[in-house]
Amino acid sequence: MKKLVNDVHDVVKESLEGFETAHADTIKVNFDPDFVVRAQPKEDGKVGLVSGGGSGHEPLHGGYVGYGMLDAAVPGAVFTSPTPDPIVEATKAADHGAGVLHIVKNYTGDVLNFETAAELCEMEDIEVATVVVNDDVAVEDSLYTAGRRGVAGTFLVEKIAGAAAERGDDLNAVAKIAQAVNDNCRSMGLALGPCTVPHAGKPSFDLGETEVEMGIGIHGEPGYRRTEMKTADELATELYEKVTSDLPFEEGDDVIVLVNGMGGTPLSELYIINRKVQQLMKKDGLNPVRTIVGDYVTSLEMPGCSLTFLRVHDDMLELFDAPTNTPGYRKGM
Amino acid sequence: MKKLVNDVHDVVKESLEGFETAHADTIKVNFDPDFVVRAQPKEDGKVGLVSGGGSGHEPLHGGYVGYGMLDAAVPGAVFTSPTPDPIVEATKAADHGAGVLHIVKNYTGDVLNFETAAELCEMEDIEVATVVVNDDVAVEDSLYTAGRRGVAGTFLVEKIAGAAAERGDDLNAVAKIAQAVNDNCRSMGLALGPCTVPHAGKPSFDLGETEVEMGIGIHGEPGYRRTEMKTADELATELYEKVTSDLPFEEGDDVIVLVNGMGGTPLSELYIINRKVQQLMKKDGLNPVRTIVGDYVTSLEMPGCSLTFLRVHDDMLELFDAPTNTPGYRKGM
Repeated sequence: MKKLVNDVHDVVKESLEGFETAHADTIKVNFDPDFVVRAQPKEDGKVGLVSGGGSGHEPLHGGYVGYGMLDAAVPGAVFTSPTPDPIVEATKAADHGAGVLHIVKNYTGDVLNFETAAELCEMEDIEVATVVVNDDVAVEDSLYTAGRRGVAGTFLVEKIAGAAAERGDDLNAVAKIAQAVNDNCRSMGLALGPCTVPHAGKPSFDLGETEVEMGIGIHGEPGYRRTEMKTADELATELYEKVTSDLPFEEGDDVIVLVNGMGGTPLSELYIINRKVQQLMKKDGLNPVRTIVGDYVTSLEMPGCSLTFLRVHDDMLELFDAPTNTPGYRKGM
Repeated sequence: MKKLVNDVHDVVKESLEGFETAHADTIKVNFDPDFVVRAQPKEDGKVGLVSGGGSGHEPLHGGYVGYGMLDAAVPGAVFTSPTPDPIVEATKAADHGAGVLHIVKNYTGDVLNFETAAELCEMEDIEVATVVVNDDVAVEDSLYTAGRRGVAGTFLVEKIAGAAAERGDDLNAVAKIAQAVNDNCRSMGLALGPCTVPHAGKPSFDLGETEVEMGIGIHGEPGYRRTEMKTADELATELYEKVTSDLPFEEGDDVIVLVNGMGGTPLSELYIINRKVQQLMKKDGLNPVRTIVGDYVTSLEMPGCSLTFLRVHDDMLELFDAPTNTPGYRKGM
């Protein structure tokens, strides 16, 4: 294993230290327990947003702390759920008297630990609502989940719910929009190869020289099939068909499109995928109101990509366009 | 070779198509000859900025077309200089009557083709100035260069000169600030492995299981030595020492720091590198006035990173902080 690390057990802590020094104008890191908070917390009355989960998906979640998105984020060890204690502390830090929304990707450990943390917070009179993100259409139950997994759609939930909180919506309204984003969001990914978790020291799975894993999970969990390598257009078409047939997306729908890199794929290849996706949307009469392409929810250095579609309605687009200033995503400020 | 491509000869064109559909609010792509221009060109009197070079370094250069940075960018084939013809057309498109600055990375083909293009433009009464970027301290002459190579510092030249043009500086002034950025900028990179040029179909070089290439070029050209893999702190220290001893950077200097990913390195590892860099700066009394960490100038999916230091003086920092809105970098708007 060749990685830019020191002791493999210090990866998360040292990465957080380097993260804080780079973005001290926007975020602060609390160590022991480890969580990321805004450098300039909102004074009073704003609903707090907290997310978290295993590290290794950067910029998710710490990179999305800042104006217009999260108030705090809790990084676990790489691909490992954070324990309740730091979630409780992050929730306290994110509470400005209007309650806190937990945005939780649907993995058994995350759901359990956020649930425990929420109970502990309620005992301290912090009102907590929770949205569980489960946008991945690839598989139903999987290695770490009951039900579908939460993947790149999480970014859209954080962006849109974050904007709702920023404009002053109350906890019930913010939770409702977060849930609506999840309900209208579908994703699927593929991998051309594995990634290596530093403390494991070896690739998370084996894939043949000419194989591709369709429906890959963001921890390298198996998808729904392995197939021989195909052209970008064929692979994009399979992602597109799985994603659009699920909701289903229908002619005339306004869609926010996210072509997401898993960490080890050149931007130029993501654009080739996007090209085909846009062609297919045109043919089917789907309207790409916004398209973003890049590494938003990664799996360390995994080569591969995912496709996320969000069917927008009500004021989701306005909220998506609202200003935000975080280390990982900046818009309008 | 597993890549998200169709015909390897269509990579640049198809990628540009997907790029245009994603960012139609900001950029337009002209095909045959291929170049990227702003969707909303500035009307009159602004100095135009044009850069370009081989593709494969995305978001450089097309991703930096937009308000506050470039007016046009010319992508060649992967790792291959564009010919004079598209450079001429891009220069014409970027000319708003105040002349055009060519920002050229110091590779023999790029320098030659931009030079020819500049001569052709002058014959059509477009005034052209040129800055050649050569920030890489790793090697003097190399595979594709006479003198030092131009690498990630190019991003800083484009950002700062772009802001100067946007505020209304004339061609002479914009060229002068671009040159000053280059003169005060030093970079060096390392690779943990190769990348694969699609039309070549095989990795650009071989590197042993435990080897690292110090001073790597952005096309996978050799650096100044191969060594056994070391810790992130040791590797960061070597980059830091080479970069800072070259200008040299001295106690009290204000520095913009860019920890750049080469395409296949997790963000978390770049932050571990940044952590050590910031520790070393503190020890030496260098002042990191701004730090950016991410994939700004890449080499396809190469695993590795580079470190760029810019000693800021005069109004460079103000220009760096000025608003910009491009597909690859957004700030203050």
